[in-house]
Amino acid sequence: MTQLLLSELCRRLTYSGFAARLEGEDRAIQGVNTLEDAREGEVTFLANPKYSSAVDKTKASAVILRNDFPVPKRVSALRCDDPYGAVTLAIVILHGHRRHPQWGLSERASIDESARIGTNPNIAGGVSIAADVTIGDNCTIYPGCYVGDGARIGSDCTLFPNVVIYDHCELGDRVTIHAGSVIGEDGLGYAPQGGKWMKIPQVGRAIIGDDVEIGANCAIDRATLGYTAVEAGTKFGNVVVIGHGTKVGPDCMFVGLVGVAGSANIGKHVTLAAGAGAVGHITVGDDVQVGATSCVMGNVEPKATLLGTPATDAMQAKRSLIAIQKLPEWIQRVRQLEKEVQSLREQLDSASS
Amino acid sequence: MTQLLLSELCRRLTYSGFAARLEGEDRAIQGVNTLEDAREGEVTFLANPKYSSAVDKTKASAVILRNDFPVPKRVSALRCDDPYGAVTLAIVILHGHRRHPQWGLSERASIDESARIGTNPNIAGGVSIAADVTIGDNCTIYPGCYVGDGARIGSDCTLFPNVVIYDHCELGDRVTIHAGSVIGEDGLGYAPQGGKWMKIPQVGRAIIGDDVEIGANCAIDRATLGYTAVEAGTKFGNVVVIGHGTKVGPDCMFVGLVGVAGSANIGKHVTLAAGAGAVGHITVGDDVQVGATSCVMGNVEPKATLLGTPATDAMQAKRSLIAIQKLPEWIQRVRQLEKEVQSLREQLDSASS
Amino acid sequence: MTQLLLSELCRRLTYSGFAARLEGEDRAIQGVNTLEDAREGEVTFLANPKYSSAVDKTKASAVILRNDFPVPKRVSALRCDDPYGAVTLAIVILHGHRRHPQWGLSERASIDESARIGTNPNIAGGVSIAADVTIGDNCTIYPGCYVGDGARIGSDCTLFPNVVIYDHCELGDRVTIHAGSVIGEDGLGYAPQGGKWMKIPQVGRAIIGDDVEIGANCAIDRATLGYTAVEAGTKFGNVVVIGHGTKVGPDCMFVGLVGVAGSANIGKHVTLAAGAGAVGHITVGDDVQVGATSCVMGNVEPKATLLGTPATDAMQAKRSLIAIQKLPEWIQRVRQLEKEVQSLREQLDSASS
Repeated sequence: MTQLLLSELCRRLTYSGFAARLEGEDRAIQGVNTLEDAREGEVTFLANPKYSSAVDKTKASAVILRNDFPVPKRVSALRCDDPYGAVTLAIVILHGHRRHPQWGLSERASIDESARIGTNPNIAGGVSIAADVTIGDNCTIYPGCYVGDGARIGSDCTLFPNVVIYDHCELGDRVTIHAGSVIGEDGLGYAPQGGKWMKIPQVGRAIIGDDVEIGANCAIDRATLGYTAVEAGTKFGNVVVIGHGTKVGPDCMFVGLVGVAGSANIGKHVTLAAGAGAVGHITVGDDVQVGATSCVMGNVEPKATLLGTPATDAMQAKRSLIAIQKLPEWIQRVRQLEKEVQSLREQLDSASS
Repeated sequence: MTQLLLSELCRRLTYSGFAARLEGEDRAIQGVNTLEDAREGEVTFLANPKYSSAVDKTKASAVILRNDFPVPKRVSALRCDDPYGAVTLAIVILHGHRRHPQWGLSERASIDESARIGTNPNIAGGVSIAADVTIGDNCTIYPGCYVGDGARIGSDCTLFPNVVIYDHCELGDRVTIHAGSVIGEDGLGYAPQGGKWMKIPQVGRAIIGDDVEIGANCAIDRATLGYTAVEAGTKFGNVVVIGHGTKVGPDCMFVGLVGVAGSANIGKHVTLAAGAGAVGHITVGDDVQVGATSCVMGNVEPKATLLGTPATDAMQAKRSLIAIQKLPEWIQRVRQLEKEVQSLREQLDSASS
Repeated sequence: MTQLLLSELCRRLTYSGFAARLEGEDRAIQGVNTLEDAREGEVTFLANPKYSSAVDKTKASAVILRNDFPVPKRVSALRCDDPYGAVTLAIVILHGHRRHPQWGLSERASIDESARIGTNPNIAGGVSIAADVTIGDNCTIYPGCYVGDGARIGSDCTLFPNVVIYDHCELGDRVTIHAGSVIGEDGLGYAPQGGKWMKIPQVGRAIIGDDVEIGANCAIDRATLGYTAVEAGTKFGNVVVIGHGTKVGPDCMFVGLVGVAGSANIGKHVTLAAGAGAVGHITVGDDVQVGATSCVMGNVEPKATLLGTPATDAMQAKRSLIAIQKLPEWIQRVRQLEKEVQSLREQLDSASS
């Protein structure tokens, strides 16, 4: 852990594009923490206005926040327009990224002699690397990982423990995959035959682009033919499941327990919130946002914001939700109308008779 | 990869029951690919009419499809009634099934001396096989798998990397389990006692039938007492979770992210689409189909097609869905009716006064 | 397996607080089984009245049940007020808890020399324990587990195969984690920057309390800063996913395929049924119960019972559900009303003209 003056942190944030201004005393800090848990000597942040009342109670020495929130006198402030981005950089500066154990190329790893391993490998005991595998430079592979026949892994990748890469799949550069995730297992491909299921060999592959990060216990099918893709810069949470032949565009964000069925085309920078999903054989445009637990069941235009199952325009879905909650009341009003109309009918009939 | 004349492929498809007819030039082909990715020398297929326009643009040398779709002159056609079944067979003929690495009985596997292993084993280093385990002939077990005390595995099974079979569980013949799946972990069995949870020992087992295939990162509980069953021929996608004591009948198809709670009885040839589920202690009849993300919350008659949560008859559920989307409009119409009736009431009252 | 007279079982149940009364012949029993699968010499139980008809057909020698259910003459009865609690104890008495293989401290485990291991270790080959790890007494760690740098594990813990504990995470005493679960992977923390995602180093930890049991293939994020917590006595089923910084209180029960997003505060003794979830940044009070597949999307008062998505009061949600199913009928009634009012209007207008 590094120690740093607030003025120096301010200077480095500004240098990296997060124009920051120090307000209050210049103090030495050595870490970042939450508003709740921070202690003296730590800097904290306020990005979500919902937590602004916690600023008054924080024990942090400084807080990174926007201009429009007050801070108590005892706390220094680093004012900037993007506190979330700034605190991210502050964490990198003060804590750095995770340091992995250093195994070199462990003698207890099981590496086929036909495999080509780049320079500066960091491959643990208990790793199995099959025939004709190619691995780039500076890769860290934790115990229990399996890399199948003919798979290709780029440079600067990290596979956490027990990750499985099936045969002939490909990972780009700087790919990170968390523990227990599986890339390239067979898709659910069967032809129905008289009430039985005939296995369709899954001869395609799965291809993961540069800078992709995948959470724990995910499963990304290989394609039946051709390939399944997760394109550059996309980030997955835990237990994300991608069906065979689906293409996920670049810079998407899929939160946890998300599923996309097979043969779907997901555009770039699409967000699927927690528990959301999409059925197969559909096209979802760029910059689409799908709310938590919502399921997309048809093609979606770019930039749409969707909610519900089947997912529809979020504003409309919210109106429907409110309407549903008031439905018992509306049914009462319809019943009342029926009585009223019946009474009018009787009155009119008796008047005209 | 094999090379084959279209006329020979046609003959072999017909021989296997997919009566096919060659239209156009007889060409040599050496692989199957998608309409989009196929190149010269490859055969492709059209099963889903949705993609018929892609036939005009394909670079494939031939396409397997039904009689009623035209093909460009430069492309040969293999006409048959079941293109999906036929292409499945074509993939088997031209690509074959996956070939596993060959380890024999690796010296680096950890196998208890009391375990009985059948002939022709293919068991990798890094596999652990506990006491009193029985494994049939021709089984392939990838690195990182664990087979617990007294478990029984039939012949011709494949366990991909990091599969865990808990003690005393049973697999039939020709069972395939993909990476990271777990068979026979304890179910969530606790007796409530004064706000705490008292563990109920899970002394039952999990039994997996012949020809079952299970996707990646699934979890199938052992039973508290008796057994949990997945019967012959059933196929699971990824992250399918089955509760303790549940019986899943033969030839079912459960897609990804599917869950069935404990003590349920699921019939034969039941389909649960992606994200679907069923609560515990219910009976679902044969040939039931449950739509994506729908949850079955009561007993279901055979052959029903269900949708929604709680899952109801699909036609009715669709009508309700459409009605919900139009709900704000209907509420407007009720409001309008109320005004109208109020005005009628006033008019009538003034007329009769 | 133990053999026991029913009278002795009755005495031991009563001694432990499940006041029981033997009705019928005193027989020797040697196991517990389900109503359906039990054979002579076994005791079964009836806790769920739904299965009372199965009592007539059981082949068990005895059944544990309440006073108000009849049993056939050939079956002895153990009458008590809490058959579920009593049968739990009967299973413990007659079957005991699982006995693990005994490895001692396997020479084939990979244990960093800086790690401190308590007395009576039971650590299998194929386990990796990194630098500065502390492990308490009497811990069982199955093959394929990984315990990262600086992690701390209490006494009497069990890690089933392929469990991964990331660096610096903590487990209390008597924690059980089933196969394939991952504790402390990075949360989905990225700052948006010009359409790209900038990684926020996840420098917090995950802390698991005493007596927690976690099912198979779960994933519990570490916090960005501070810690993610699962407090003492809480039980998770399979594939439970907990987001970064979330605090789950003591004695909760989360069934399978459950997800809670990040920065949520879940109280004590909260139940999330199968497939349920909660969004992030919310507070859920003590003793809340959330029904299957429901998603909590806002703060919840203690003791609430919720259903639906977004989860609302269960009674209200059920009324809305019934209303939705009858919606097409109500729309017909509104259409009918419109005609009726139109006809009244015409009649009234013609009368007044």
